[in-house]
Amino acid sequence: MTTRQQTEEASFEGLVVGVDIGGTNLRVALANKAGTIVGRWSYSTVGIRDPQEIVRMTCKGVEALLSANASSHGDLVAIGAGAPGITDTDHGKVLATSYLMGWKNIPLRDLLEAELGVPAFVDNDVNMAAFGEHSAGSARGVDNFVFLAIGTGVGAGIILNGEPFRGEGWIAGEIGYMLVPGTSVGLVEAGEPGALEAIVGGEGIRSHWQGVWSEGSTELTKDATATQIFDEALAGNPLAHAVLGLASRTLAYAIYNISLVLNCPLFVLGGNVGLHPALVDATRVILKGRNARVQSRLVPSSLGVEAQLYGAVFQAIAIAGKPNPGR
Amino acid sequence: MTTRQQTEEASFEGLVVGVDIGGTNLRVALANKAGTIVGRWSYSTVGIRDPQEIVRMTCKGVEALLSANASSHGDLVAIGAGAPGITDTDHGKVLATSYLMGWKNIPLRDLLEAELGVPAFVDNDVNMAAFGEHSAGSARGVDNFVFLAIGTGVGAGIILNGEPFRGEGWIAGEIGYMLVPGTSVGLVEAGEPGALEAIVGGEGIRSHWQGVWSEGSTELTKDATATQIFDEALAGNPLAHAVLGLASRTLAYAIYNISLVLNCPLFVLGGNVGLHPALVDATRVILKGRNARVQSRLVPSSLGVEAQLYGAVFQAIAIAGKPNPGR
Repeated sequence: MTTRQQTEEASFEGLVVGVDIGGTNLRVALANKAGTIVGRWSYSTVGIRDPQEIVRMTCKGVEALLSANASSHGDLVAIGAGAPGITDTDHGKVLATSYLMGWKNIPLRDLLEAELGVPAFVDNDVNMAAFGEHSAGSARGVDNFVFLAIGTGVGAGIILNGEPFRGEGWIAGEIGYMLVPGTSVGLVEAGEPGALEAIVGGEGIRSHWQGVWSEGSTELTKDATATQIFDEALAGNPLAHAVLGLASRTLAYAIYNISLVLNCPLFVLGGNVGLHPALVDATRVILKGRNARVQSRLVPSSLGVEAQLYGAVFQAIAIAGKPNPGR
Repeated sequence: MTTRQQTEEASFEGLVVGVDIGGTNLRVALANKAGTIVGRWSYSTVGIRDPQEIVRMTCKGVEALLSANASSHGDLVAIGAGAPGITDTDHGKVLATSYLMGWKNIPLRDLLEAELGVPAFVDNDVNMAAFGEHSAGSARGVDNFVFLAIGTGVGAGIILNGEPFRGEGWIAGEIGYMLVPGTSVGLVEAGEPGALEAIVGGEGIRSHWQGVWSEGSTELTKDATATQIFDEALAGNPLAHAVLGLASRTLAYAIYNISLVLNCPLFVLGGNVGLHPALVDATRVILKGRNARVQSRLVPSSLGVEAQLYGAVFQAIAIAGKPNPGR
């Protein structure tokens, strides 16, 4: 199997832009038609909620990158953007983001196209990251796999037949709410972490650590981050190891459940918590210990925090120079 | 949305056959190109393991049905068959069945084509049932849904974009092993029920009943079947109600998990246990109680035990008169 990018030669000349709209940073990348990033630009988005403002900042970044690359606006052929929320890719709308940004039904594609004058494609950031891994990362050449983004929250980007699978309500892969042995079955209010997230997400891991932490038992502070706790587990601290054990066991159950549904051969772990080698290794051991009929491989994301940006770049390449009968 | 059967007119003249190969019965249906069954034939398969014998019995059924319909063998244009095991539809092979039949790598499609002289299509029986519901049952017009077969075992047939989704190893939907709150997390040996099956499957329900049963507390015997226990729950018996409660709660967790992954709007419950209105209703109440972002509908199969047979008929219609470049 090969990726679409490897089998189809891009039928355009020019440059594309990939955008990752995050809660703390807006990142913009300029790339050629092979997907090679030739320039990067980023800007803090802390406190910025207005989508028009995000679009204006994006344009500023695009112009700065084109200028630094000695290119003109006429060289730009398409833009892809990942947004941190539920996204209707048919209509290019961000239906909802977390309460932090508070977006509702934002026509992000139209806003970007109006400002930049080139075709745009927008998708949820986890789907973008999955597409990035498929196009240029750990899942290159694998047409059916699941990308798991584990940071503060937990979400999945599902690739089937080489394309993101988004579900009828654009929320396929919302596995942060999954119920597995050990999770709460209580109802979750809006803004609260989901059942799985409460154990496997960064804040859940910190909170477990705070519960078991005691003075003198570790050099790590009580308010350590998930990745610091995992580092401490690797260093042999038994408390940290117990926290890692619960997170990896619970994550392994979720991966096992997803693999029962989709029977896909590969899972890619991403996000700042998901990338940690201690979590990847411990989860892999538990998965291997289950006598599943088909063993799924578990690998860390090779693109890391760049996965969304690459996904946006490759989605821009996918739409560049192509007619879009949907509009 | 409409089904393929509704939008494309069948491009052939003649009759098709659908076959359901079960552990206790072989059922054969003769149908016209609209999918209307014009004749049925069945035969006991108890004690029969030889695939050649199953194929010979199938031919006997086909000839009997053609003759009863005053048709000749020349009127037959295609055959579809559902088998109780993991099936590679690309190569028409049954890779494995339960230990009862013990099939391994049986080229069922080739065997049927050699005997009957018409194109054949073989698939797993749960996928066939899902396709039946999509073509002529509760999921008519719904292109993304999950069919849950709950009998002795528990399995799912997943329809995405109007077609069965089978997974890379042909075992997508093998949810009998799913881990949800309350299930065992212990390893399952071959032939043993999976974690979910052990609670939601017919034998699991009986075993729970046997554990809570006491003389005088119910008119039902200790060795009652799952559907008898559910009848008793509907009649108001508290012990039976507790057994129903655990089964429906555990099933609701599994459905909720699948809907998080696939974000599909409909679940169809089939199989002799899954069809029971007490289970359907109790599970629906629990699902509605969860404040999911998108609520999936839960309905019983309208084809009941005929779902596989209809699926086989409609798959035969789908291949009838069409070139097959895969062979």
